[in-house]
Order: sequence, then C-alpha cells, then structure tokens
Amino acid sequence: MTRIAADQVLESVRAQRAMASTLFDQLRRDGLDEPGVSRDPYGAGEQRGHATVTQVAKTLGLEIENDVAANLYMTQPGRDRSAPRVIVGSHLDSVPHGGNFDGAAGVVAGLVAIAALRRMNIQPACDLTVMGIRAEESIWFQVSYIGSRGALATLPDGALDVRRVDTGRTLREHMTECGGDPAAVARRHRHLDPTRLRAYLELHIEQAPSLVEANRSVAICTGIPGNFRYPDARIEGSHDHVGLPRRFRRDAAMAGADFAMAMDALWAEYDQRGIPMACTIGRFHTDTSAHGMTIVPGAFHFSLDVRAYDEAVLAELDARVDAIIGAVEQRRGVRFHRGPKARAAVGPVDPTIESALLAGAGELGLAPLRIGSPASHDAAAFAECGVPMGMIFVRNENGSHNPHEAMDIDDFLDGSAVLTHWIAREIGA
Amino acid sequence: MTRIAADQVLESVRAQRAMASTLFDQLRRDGLDEPGVSRDPYGAGEQRGHATVTQVAKTLGLEIENDVAANLYMTQPGRDRSAPRVIVGSHLDSVPHGGNFDGAAGVVAGLVAIAALRRMNIQPACDLTVMGIRAEESIWFQVSYIGSRGALATLPDGALDVRRVDTGRTLREHMTECGGDPAAVARRHRHLDPTRLRAYLELHIEQAPSLVEANRSVAICTGIPGNFRYPDARIEGSHDHVGLPRRFRRDAAMAGADFAMAMDALWAEYDQRGIPMACTIGRFHTDTSAHGMTIVPGAFHFSLDVRAYDEAVLAELDARVDAIIGAVEQRRGVRFHRGPKARAAVGPVDPTIESALLAGAGELGLAPLRIGSPASHDAAAFAECGVPMGMIFVRNENGSHNPHEAMDIDDFLDGSAVLTHWIAREIGA
Repeated sequence: MTRIAADQVLESVRAQRAMASTLFDQLRRDGLDEPGVSRDPYGAGEQRGHATVTQVAKTLGLEIENDVAANLYMTQPGRDRSAPRVIVGSHLDSVPHGGNFDGAAGVVAGLVAIAALRRMNIQPACDLTVMGIRAEESIWFQVSYIGSRGALATLPDGALDVRRVDTGRTLREHMTECGGDPAAVARRHRHLDPTRLRAYLELHIEQAPSLVEANRSVAICTGIPGNFRYPDARIEGSHDHVGLPRRFRRDAAMAGADFAMAMDALWAEYDQRGIPMACTIGRFHTDTSAHGMTIVPGAFHFSLDVRAYDEAVLAELDARVDAIIGAVEQRRGVRFHRGPKARAAVGPVDPTIESALLAGAGELGLAPLRIGSPASHDAAAFAECGVPMGMIFVRNENGSHNPHEAMDIDDFLDGSAVLTHWIAREIGA
Repeated sequence: MTRIAADQVLESVRAQRAMASTLFDQLRRDGLDEPGVSRDPYGAGEQRGHATVTQVAKTLGLEIENDVAANLYMTQPGRDRSAPRVIVGSHLDSVPHGGNFDGAAGVVAGLVAIAALRRMNIQPACDLTVMGIRAEESIWFQVSYIGSRGALATLPDGALDVRRVDTGRTLREHMTECGGDPAAVARRHRHLDPTRLRAYLELHIEQAPSLVEANRSVAICTGIPGNFRYPDARIEGSHDHVGLPRRFRRDAAMAGADFAMAMDALWAEYDQRGIPMACTIGRFHTDTSAHGMTIVPGAFHFSLDVRAYDEAVLAELDARVDAIIGAVEQRRGVRFHRGPKARAAVGPVDPTIESALLAGAGELGLAPLRIGSPASHDAAAFAECGVPMGMIFVRNENGSHNPHEAMDIDDFLDGSAVLTHWIAREIGA
C-alpha cells in the first residue's frame, strides 16, 4: 500500500460529478415508469440500464464482458493481470416503481472510481472490475441475489424454474432472453474464483434514515443480515357468513392479524434486548377474487421476511415463528401453509476492510457512522463464498424501494471518495 | 283465525317435496358457477333465477307482476282483494360462488305454501303474494336491501349511482337492463303501502350452526340486527424498505392488524357482557398492485361491518370504533381514511307473529329454537317501514355465503310447514 493524499482523492472524485449526474439522469430516463423507475430484472427496464452503463464503460475504454447469468463486467486492466482482482459492484435492477439510486449508485461509483484513479495517473496493481449485477431485488422472482449467485454458482436448486411474479415466466426464460445461458449457471464465472479475488466492495444508498438522523453523508457497514423467508404463505380458515357468531368462526384474516401482532411483539422484545433484527410482512391480504364485506375470510395470504446479523439469532427466531404459528392455529382454528422457505446466509464484513474504510473516511474528513446494513445486498453472496467484503452506505432521504428515494450527489461523491481512497491505497501502488 | 289440524298442514306441505326439489335443482343449474352458484344481482345469474321462478308461478296460475326495481310479485288472489295482503318473500340473488339456498329457499317456501293451501282447499281471505326480491347481497353493490328498499321507496340517496364491484357499472344501468325503471324507485310500489300490509314473512336458511349444534330443524327469529359499515376504508402509512428499523416504520398493514385485533377484543368484551353483536372485516389487504415481500406496506385496505340488535348498542360501538382508530393512528403513525359509511336500522320482529310462529311450530311437533338472526334480511327493510314482520330459520350445515351450504329438504319442509300453518291460521278462514 502506498500513501495517497486525501485531498487528491477528493479532488479527483469530485471532478467526476458531471459524468455521474449525466449517467444517473440517463438511467432514470431508461427506467422511467411513473411514479419512479422500474428496472425489471431480466426485462426491458434492466436491459436499458445495462446498455447505458456498457456505453459509458466503452467510452472509458474498459474491457466489457457478460457472464452466463448476463451480469456485466467492466474491467480496468491491472499491471499484473494474473493477480487476484478487486471487484466493485452492485445491481442495476430496481423494485417496481422504485427509486433511481438503489443499486445503480454502486455501479456508477465503480466507474467514478476508475475515472478518478486515471485522473490521479494510477494504474491498479491488479485488474479492477466494476460489476453490473442482475436481479438483486427479490420482489420479482422471490429469490435472493440471483445475478451474483448465478455468477458464483451458488443459486439454490430450482431457482431457474421460479416465475417472475408479474410476467409468470420463468427465470430461465427471462435469463435466456437477456443473452444469458441458464444451463451454464451451475459453473462459477472464471473471474469469481474466491481464491482469485482480493476483495468485493459495494457502495449502496442507505435504506433507513440513520444517516439523515445523524447528519452524516456516509457510513461503513458492519455486517449484512441473513434472513429466512416465506414468500408465499397462506392461512386456511373457513369462509362464512357475516352473521356467524364469534365462537364458530375460523377467520383466516383475524388469524393473519393475530400472527402479525405476535411478530410485532417479538420484534419489540428483541429491540428491548438490544439484538438487531427486522421483520416485514410485505404482502398481507385476503383473497381479492373471493373476499367481500359480508364474508368472513376463509383464506389469507402473506409473505414473511425475518432478518438478523447472527446465524444463532436467526435460528432462535425461526423457532419462535414456528411457536407463534402453532399458537395462532390453536387459538383461531385455522391452518397455516408456510409454502416454500427461502434463506440467505449472514454476510460478515471483512474486519480489515472495514477498518481501512473507516480510517480512510476519517482521513477524508467524513466522520462516518458504523451501521449494520439492515437490508440484503449482493455483497453477502460474495462473503458467503469467503470473498473479503466491505460496504459503504450513502445518505439517502425517504427510504428506498419507493419513488421518493433522494440521494444528494455530494453525498454520493463522498461515498465514492471513500471507495476510491481504499482502492488507491490497496492496489494503487 | 280458524283451527287447522297440524297433521293436515304437514301432509300438504310434504306433498310439495318433488316440486320444491325440482325447483331448487333448476335454480342451481341456473346459477352454476363452480364452485357454487353466482346469482349476480341485476345480472345474468339472478335473471335466470327470476325466469325459473316465474315459470313455476305461471304453472301454479299465480298473478305475475314486476315493479320498477324489477322485483317479482306472484300473487294468489284472496277472497277479498281489497283486504291488506300478506307477503312471503326473500331474495333470489346470491354472493359470488355462494350456496343455492341463501335467499332462494324463502321464495320456494312461499310457492310451497300456496300449493299446500290449495291441497287443503284453502283460498286465503286476502291476497297472498310471494315476492322474489332483487339484490339483497350487499357484497355486490355494497348497499343493503336494494330490491326491497327500492320497492319500499327507502333506498338511500345516491344508491343508484353505486357501481357493482365486479362490473364497475352503476346500479341504475344494471336495474334498467333487467327491466327496472330506476327513475321511478322514489315511489313506493302500490302493493307495499305499510297500512295495506298485514304481514311480511320470510323463511331463510340459518347462516350460523346453532340449529345444527342443537339438533333442531327450525328456529323462530327474535330480531334482525342493524349495522354500520365502512365498505371502503383504507390506512395510509409509508412504503419503505424491508431494512427500515422498527422505530422509523409507519406500516399500514401492521396498523390494519392492530385495528383488527382491537375489534376482536371489543367483540370478546361484548360477548362476555352478554350483549349480542358481530364484527366482520371481510376485505383486509395490502395493495396487490404495489405490495411485495421486501416492501414495508404503506397502504392497506379493509371493509368493516359491525352489527347489533339494539340501536343504543350500535351507537356505543360506533364510538368505540372511532376510539380504536384514533389509538391505532397514534401508536402506528398512520392515518385512517374511513371512506363512505353505510347504516341499516335494527329490524324488530312483531311479537304477535313471533308468538304465533312459535306456537305453530310447537303444534307441528318441531321444538323450534328462538334465535336472533345474526345476518341482515329484507325483512328488516319491511320492519323499518312499520310492517309486522316474522322470520323462520331452517337448519343448514357449513354456513352460508359459501358453496358448501347444505340444507336438508326435510328441514326445509319443516320450515315451510311452520310458514303454511301460520298462513292457514291467519288468513285461511
């Protein structure tokens, strides 16, 4: 490692402001689907985003490749092309009617870093690859980290047969349409052998308002939660007449409400114990084709996402959810059908990278927060394979996964400076 | 009143078994929409039911009329055609994918009673009209008692502009298509001047399992509940990312669950106090176009039906619901939008008719239960206008408003015997 002046990094990164703004604006136009943007994974919205980013990478003279999962690799060759590479990545898809920065900011930051390094006349010691990852947003296929796990050959069995919730078509079909080769995703991409990767870094907007609340521009991630999920759970009760007395009812919606309140109480308990977790019941609904004002609901549907930063805590929560379901079944005379269960492993941040990012941010004068990512990120898929991983969060107002996401370009440049500074220190000499 | 032998009534009613079975079978075929039947009000399903019943009434030589709300009147002329008439009625529509007997049984029972009276060579003292009523099931237009109140000129303002939830077309359009004259529903039908009505009687399947539980075939109704309703309420929270910490969330679905559990506790409290009521949240759902596993729900929709047998209890419950909504808004940082509010008045049963029905059922050897109708019925619309009203419930398994409704023809004939016995005693001499 070499000594790079912090002010030189800041100047070189800030010089990329126009490039970054122009690229964000084009990505917004590419994905526009009022309100907000929809970069549907392995679909038209994401495709346009990939085309735009590829075009900028070509302008920068980077080596362009796509893998069998149709991820995009944009590589600045290093002085030693055989040395373990550094990957900077994030995803280019979005939720439906989401914001412009969730995912895309990390890809743009990688391109900003490469441009800033050039301005500092730094050619990295090893290859530096910016990765535009596919299909991170699990709302569409209800599978986590499809692009990164597709490239790392860690996609769960059956994932290719999963159908996108809006189109009803399989991941296999969607992937093929976008130039992928789903039959080959069982093989890891040649750039991604964990023993040949020096680090995976990801910059991402913060999806909670901690930075807004603390009035800081950047945070260094301390860990990515693992989760367990029931994407398609349902409750079976009995459809009955509005006049049915209380003692006879087997109301599936009341059972859903009972379950939700018990999950809420569980979370409150963990909050009080100081154990970080989160619980989200994103879909929570009577059967819209059969429900009505004068029918006691006999069917109820929900999704569940429970996340925590510690595998032992996840296991404990898993058992607690089972106990809650059993108690609600008993109390309400209903039956839960959990449906498929999905899991994602906890994604530990590499302590050396975390320390270096913190120190670097300090040198840049940024007073970063240290926060656990409450959200999932592709970085966790790399960490799971043993790749040293680190993440930088950028302040963002109004949360994410909604059209009101708002990241300030100055904050983005702060985060990109932390990234660039780390790269310059690590592989700049 | 004259003395009619109970065994003669039973024999004459039971002689109509084949006619009743054949008519039920045809009505089932008319409405078939697997699973169950859909006799959509002012639509094809209900129309076919009306045509079938009209055909049978013609075979019986009854006078056929339709009113401006397209209700059907099938009249056995009395000896004194100017004497106040007796109406036996119920509705011919059903909920979507409902059972075959909810409503239709009361119309068939009226025809059975007329046929049984003839078998006993009884011509009634006054006109006896069987009424096939339109659009009782409020799930479709979310307005109560459309047919009966259309004929009684008590439809609430704006009802004609309400849209059927499935077709999106107005009651006015639907009514016109079925031969009605919506512009004229402000005038009461000439048969329905309350001072010219001796009684309104309705036989209906029981929609709760009280009779099954007690192993009796019939019950005499002690009252019909009034209600207040929010057909289209919603909760406004904030759509946020799955990673958002608990303290920042304004989760509209959790607020819905909190509200539902509070309503459930309220009902439990009234049950313990021995005050009959019911609470149903039939629609209870996140926004299916925007929800997803990894989005904290920012919008939630529900309907509410609260019913009780006493106007004072209803007023008290109304205030309690307001207090619950206020508390949930406070706790969860959300806002409730109640939308339109609908009401139906409590429908008192005429005590003389109730006693006579009870006594008659006793004479027929039936040991009837006495129960409050927990459900709403057209009979309440007549009671509200001051017409002496009585109701007979028939045992039915598996509840109603679902395809598994199951009324035994023997139980139906028991209920029809109670009805016929009352008519014979009241206007048979």
